[in-house]
Amino acid sequence: MPNPTAAMLVIGDEILSGRTRDSNLHYLSGELTRHGISLCEARVVADDHAAIVAAVRALSSQYDHLFTSGGIGPTHDDITADAIADSFGAPISHRADAMALLGAHYERQGLPFNEARQRMARIPDGAVLIDNPVSIAPGFSLGNTHVMAGVPRIFEAMLASVLPTLTGGAPLLSQSLRVMRGEGDIATDFASLAAEFPTLSMGSYPFTQNGAYGTNLVVRGTDPALVDAAMIKLTRMFG
Amino acid sequence: MPNPTAAMLVIGDEILSGRTRDSNLHYLSGELTRHGISLCEARVVADDHAAIVAAVRALSSQYDHLFTSGGIGPTHDDITADAIADSFGAPISHRADAMALLGAHYERQGLPFNEARQRMARIPDGAVLIDNPVSIAPGFSLGNTHVMAGVPRIFEAMLASVLPTLTGGAPLLSQSLRVMRGEGDIATDFASLAAEFPTLSMGSYPFTQNGAYGTNLVVRGTDPALVDAAMIKLTRMFG
Repeated sequence: MPNPTAAMLVIGDEILSGRTRDSNLHYLSGELTRHGISLCEARVVADDHAAIVAAVRALSSQYDHLFTSGGIGPTHDDITADAIADSFGAPISHRADAMALLGAHYERQGLPFNEARQRMARIPDGAVLIDNPVSIAPGFSLGNTHVMAGVPRIFEAMLASVLPTLTGGAPLLSQSLRVMRGEGDIATDFASLAAEFPTLSMGSYPFTQNGAYGTNLVVRGTDPALVDAAMIKLTRMFG
Repeated sequence: MPNPTAAMLVIGDEILSGRTRDSNLHYLSGELTRHGISLCEARVVADDHAAIVAAVRALSSQYDHLFTSGGIGPTHDDITADAIADSFGAPISHRADAMALLGAHYERQGLPFNEARQRMARIPDGAVLIDNPVSIAPGFSLGNTHVMAGVPRIFEAMLASVLPTLTGGAPLLSQSLRVMRGEGDIATDFASLAAEFPTLSMGSYPFTQNGAYGTNLVVRGTDPALVDAAMIKLTRMFG
């Protein structure tokens, strides 16, 4: 059975303007690979209601899971929760359990639980809260769409809450061979090896070292015996 | 007149599997911001012909420019040029000027100009070559779509070749104020300031320092006087 599929949607002006370098996509890709979920596509959109809704509808209908990051804080540019609700035609309101969590948190901190902070308790009807051990304000899963914070430490903590609840497949294994030859030298033999193992994915990634060309040859697949067999042939070819 | 719009398409299994962390999106976003082109969306897809074609068609028709990275090397997983040709219904073949460039390069290096390396001279009809001072194999622009390498040093060099040929708008300016208060404390006043300056974009980015909450408040816009005016009010509010 093929592994479940997934997409990621990164939400935030700051990524597209160059202010902030996203790191959540790279983190998510590694975690999903280990969990046996195939990340097939990612998109980045601005804090723009129509753009978020269009992307959420496209990606949540095309893949088994959609993971989003960003736009769930207390300020006016945090519009993700409302956009997600709109994407699925779900009503949204201040939810009692989220209000209770946040109210208790700010009381412990001696900070006012004001209107802005209460915005973080706005959750679409039918969603399941995602635990946030870092800063309490929860994420949520609505259907197959998992809505998480953009701050990397919080994104990573929320993903750790969600991932064990999702059915994964066989982890995608990866082995690589580093050769000090240019891609153009190894391309023909490498292509014939790839053709011999059609269920594996093989990629080559060039690098330079002290002015000399080298290539990392990578073999990926979910069947350990097959990956090993391909690596043995690869090493004989180029090792 | 509003600034020209753009999208980016990152092509490569290695980004979605977690093997490689993309850095070209962050680099492009900064360069476009300086050049007065608004990056509106980015996507990442695998080395998959249908996925590349679908994304290229969607993004090149929706935005003024599309920049792609990845998949133009000599190996079997480098399928971008053919996918771009297909996206626009353009024939593709080994182009004489690209063959000459590459042939001379490998002759200088004393390396065979074999079939794999000749693949890098496959260019869609009607495209304009993009100079590659790093490793010679050219990128190309076909209509509004600029096709560049994935290796960051080469991507950056190709972008430096292309960007001066594109008409930019007013650079997007950005100023920020760092305050040692949580987002929830400043959200209401910050939202009213944002409402006062509807043509500017204002965002807030929380951080923690020694366990205390702080927020970076960012004002972005193309009119320097307006950005300054907003920053003066912002500093009065929170400085």
